[in-house]
Amino acid sequence: MRTHYCGELRGIHTKETVTLFGWVDRQRDHGGVIFIDLRDRTGTIQIVSDPQRTPDSYTVAESIRNEYVIKVTGKVSQRPDESLNPKITTGEIEVYAEQIELLNAVHKQLPFVVSSADAELVREDVRLKYRYLDLRRESMSQNLQLRHQVVKAMRRFLEDEENFIEVETPILTRSTPEGARDYLVPSRVNPGEWYALPQSPQLFKQLLMVSGMDRYYQIARCFRDEDLRADRQPEFTQLDMEMSFMSLDEILNLNESLVCHIFKTVKNIDLPRPFPRLTYADSMMKYGCDRPDTRFGLELVDVSDVVKDSGFKVFSETVKNGGKVKILPITNGNDAISNVRIKPGGDLFNEATAAGAKGIAYIRVRENYELDTIGAIKDNLTSEQKQEILNRTGAKPGHLLLFGAGDQDTVNKSLCRLRLVIGELMGLIDSEKINLLWITDFPMFEWNPEEKRLEALHHPFTAPNPEDINDLANARALAYDMVFNGLEIGGGSLRIYQREIQEKVFATIGLTPEEADSKFGFLLEAFEYGTPPHGGIAYGLDRLVMLLAKEESIRDVIAFPKTQQARCLLTDAPSSVDTKQLKELNVASTYKPKS
Amino acid sequence: MRTHYCGELRGIHTKETVTLFGWVDRQRDHGGVIFIDLRDRTGTIQIVSDPQRTPDSYTVAESIRNEYVIKVTGKVSQRPDESLNPKITTGEIEVYAEQIELLNAVHKQLPFVVSSADAELVREDVRLKYRYLDLRRESMSQNLQLRHQVVKAMRRFLEDEENFIEVETPILTRSTPEGARDYLVPSRVNPGEWYALPQSPQLFKQLLMVSGMDRYYQIARCFRDEDLRADRQPEFTQLDMEMSFMSLDEILNLNESLVCHIFKTVKNIDLPRPFPRLTYADSMMKYGCDRPDTRFGLELVDVSDVVKDSGFKVFSETVKNGGKVKILPITNGNDAISNVRIKPGGDLFNEATAAGAKGIAYIRVRENYELDTIGAIKDNLTSEQKQEILNRTGAKPGHLLLFGAGDQDTVNKSLCRLRLVIGELMGLIDSEKINLLWITDFPMFEWNPEEKRLEALHHPFTAPNPEDINDLANARALAYDMVFNGLEIGGGSLRIYQREIQEKVFATIGLTPEEADSKFGFLLEAFEYGTPPHGGIAYGLDRLVMLLAKEESIRDVIAFPKTQQARCLLTDAPSSVDTKQLKELNVASTYKPKS
Repeated sequence: MRTHYCGELRGIHTKETVTLFGWVDRQRDHGGVIFIDLRDRTGTIQIVSDPQRTPDSYTVAESIRNEYVIKVTGKVSQRPDESLNPKITTGEIEVYAEQIELLNAVHKQLPFVVSSADAELVREDVRLKYRYLDLRRESMSQNLQLRHQVVKAMRRFLEDEENFIEVETPILTRSTPEGARDYLVPSRVNPGEWYALPQSPQLFKQLLMVSGMDRYYQIARCFRDEDLRADRQPEFTQLDMEMSFMSLDEILNLNESLVCHIFKTVKNIDLPRPFPRLTYADSMMKYGCDRPDTRFGLELVDVSDVVKDSGFKVFSETVKNGGKVKILPITNGNDAISNVRIKPGGDLFNEATAAGAKGIAYIRVRENYELDTIGAIKDNLTSEQKQEILNRTGAKPGHLLLFGAGDQDTVNKSLCRLRLVIGELMGLIDSEKINLLWITDFPMFEWNPEEKRLEALHHPFTAPNPEDINDLANARALAYDMVFNGLEIGGGSLRIYQREIQEKVFATIGLTPEEADSKFGFLLEAFEYGTPPHGGIAYGLDRLVMLLAKEESIRDVIAFPKTQQARCLLTDAPSSVDTKQLKELNVASTYKPKS
Repeated sequence: MRTHYCGELRGIHTKETVTLFGWVDRQRDHGGVIFIDLRDRTGTIQIVSDPQRTPDSYTVAESIRNEYVIKVTGKVSQRPDESLNPKITTGEIEVYAEQIELLNAVHKQLPFVVSSADAELVREDVRLKYRYLDLRRESMSQNLQLRHQVVKAMRRFLEDEENFIEVETPILTRSTPEGARDYLVPSRVNPGEWYALPQSPQLFKQLLMVSGMDRYYQIARCFRDEDLRADRQPEFTQLDMEMSFMSLDEILNLNESLVCHIFKTVKNIDLPRPFPRLTYADSMMKYGCDRPDTRFGLELVDVSDVVKDSGFKVFSETVKNGGKVKILPITNGNDAISNVRIKPGGDLFNEATAAGAKGIAYIRVRENYELDTIGAIKDNLTSEQKQEILNRTGAKPGHLLLFGAGDQDTVNKSLCRLRLVIGELMGLIDSEKINLLWITDFPMFEWNPEEKRLEALHHPFTAPNPEDINDLANARALAYDMVFNGLEIGGGSLRIYQREIQEKVFATIGLTPEEADSKFGFLLEAFEYGTPPHGGIAYGLDRLVMLLAKEESIRDVIAFPKTQQARCLLTDAPSSVDTKQLKELNVASTYKPKS
């Protein structure tokens, strides 16, 4: 029976006889004495087998190789001074192996080295195919353990401090596509009909509020059949919460406590409170996006009104056509950023055009506030306009002012992107800094130009701000997102809890009363029977853990993730299935492979 | 802001001003003074509104009706002696409502009464359609809260006492049908291919052991597309566990500690330890099944060897043909059970034949050990045979001996059923008793007569007993089930962790090496790279909570269950979907409704 985990042993265990289980991280023969680093999920410990001192274990120790599974019984000893290893927590001690039992061997060449001592860069597809080996590696093992700690901290806070109850909601649900595509599941018992996997437990958690559960949470699996750009997974996990009888302020406060508790528990970091709040409008103005990275400055400045009557047509026409002219002012930008980078073919030019801009206009502020730019700008701005630009941007000699001009969306997108790239390249982002803030007052709707209709910016169950109720199409929502160093980690809202408002919102996004009833009739009816005021939030667990683990991809904090082609390389899912299975389900594939 | 939950208030809060939120459980006008039972998930509290004492709240109080959502602010008072209500925890006190705010009304006739004070029997389909109202009812609200407490107790024990780590395994997995049918999900990105929803996380949890996670648990959603006889759900939840480097005894001990912790935490019950262990063979012999209810006696006695040479052909021929003759001896059965009930047409006869028996032979032991039975038996048994029957069954005057004769399966099934029915009807089962026991030493395989092959009794990853390794087809497995008052609540085993044994087991259940490789190649390969000895268990959470809640159906401990037709009556899932959705997925329904 195991007495200790490997990584737990310390100097105080000296002279104790211990029994350990684990994997051979490395085995080294030092002139007749064999050293084994034995590894389990808690760390490694040095095992010593000496033909003189521990002859029984020596024969086994000689024969074992990396990643063999062994059981070791032996005595903990202080290491001699010259072999102390302060780099590992067990580096003061070693275990003299009285017995080593081989529990299982390795029979094939390992596809890569597991030991972090000899870490090598491994292609991700190989790591995913041999995920069971990949997860043995220290960094991946630590990531999964961190994920567990994060979830545990969430649960304990919600259960012990805030009276939340965990309730499981169904995975086999009804398809109500709104935004992303549903994954569908044919029903054998109800032929011709399909379940959908939930994109979120939204409707069920609201119904739990109607049922008086008061405060609900769930670590909920969610599913979206999206084209897997960037770092998305077909299935992902969210911390899903909903609560009744709380104001927006109360909900934000509770969630700040939750997030502070997680950081304190998992990272021993005390976050400053309250978290800053920024309205959506202000965020778009200053940062060009609704999830700003506020670890550095470089705030945008709107000068549309300044240049709207200028002689520089690119600016004045833009404003006249309803567009915007905004500036990204960069302190010391003159030294840091050459013209080559801004002009066609330059890296910053490419960033801006990738975001939809046609190019970048710029002004360099030289000694004595002389403006260095192309003649078309210099000659067509009045000195008042020039002065106002300097005033608004606070530009000093050495400043570089980058201009975005065009429709508001494109200007915001391109300047937001330039801001992040330049913040990075100028070293303005302190990677140790943790900035959390709330974005509030989102618009209820945004225009979908393809479908030529308004659609809900969050989802159609979000409550409108009562002040804006008479102009619903332009109303602000009682919605909030939590942003962590420029990434959205959570979002939620107060919900509609009155039938007539819900019906108006459905009508605004273009649902006929019949469609609303067929899709969401059960929710509308529930509102008739005493629905409490309620609101909620959901956090993207994968992304939050990724940020806490300082990883670049959510795949590194998921035990068995899928590739960007939505495949599991370990089990080779999805796969073809028996035609008998499909026949029983009354379905057929209509796919004709191209020959 | 809420100051208290309704059910939390006690005498010590007298004179405090409190703010409460909840639903009007009942509103009564007692001669000008209005009483409201205000309910939230913690219980109810009596609110008083008196036109003299609290005129501000009175107008609102008059207008509100059952299930309105209100906010109440008022002072806690001791109730007058004559209106103390010891039946509810808040029965000492009441709250004089200074203010009542109506937050939401009920606009439609309620489909049923919610208050437990006026509880009515409601059809289950109505309850499921209006589940949000059903869950407001005290018993259902308590069930969901109990479920939460059970899960919480599990998690805390496993995390805090036993170093388990929670790891999430995928829901979109590979189809490897073995036993039950898989739910399938078409992949849009990989046309012609399908994911399957997991019947359990079995393979992933074993791979987590290969990856060194050491001790894993998950409250895991599982899916089986079965014909929904009895009390099954298309999706269900299990506590899923797997652990490395532990012996069978260590695993059983840990699990006894877990279950004792749950009972202590949730019910304040101290269970006796260790739990009794019964081999599969003994359990089949004594109880005719592998999940015996041991709260009462009535153990079966095998007399095949006694009667094999008797002149009563029904018995002797049965034994000669490889069948069994067993007795269910019933103390005082003569008084309790008339011949009418045993003979054709009687209720016990029907029970036996429903289980496959042709009928029931019997002997009544009268005064002076005289045997009262049909002539064919009395005349064809020798006095030694008669005496041996009395000896083995311990029969005394008053005993009724019921005989089963036939193939072993049928005898066991029918006598097991009679045992339970007679235990019930004779009042031998103490419903307060909690008997937990282990069944061990299951056979590895059972014969599937339809497919004419052996199949794994548990699953093909179960380790055989090393003593039986040379006769694998007849080997005992290192498997164990936990049985609670005659229902299996958990089951598990040590697992195979060596490729050659796994291959032999696959061969025994009829998989060719190619099939084994195509379905489970990744597991076989994982065994090559240092797999630790490991084992695990899974508990059916729904059933365990049902038993703890003393409910008859798992639907009563699931927030949003499906019917036996696998439908959700609340959201009307499954449903037909847009043909556009199916087209994108490259699938079609082949179902032709009969016109």
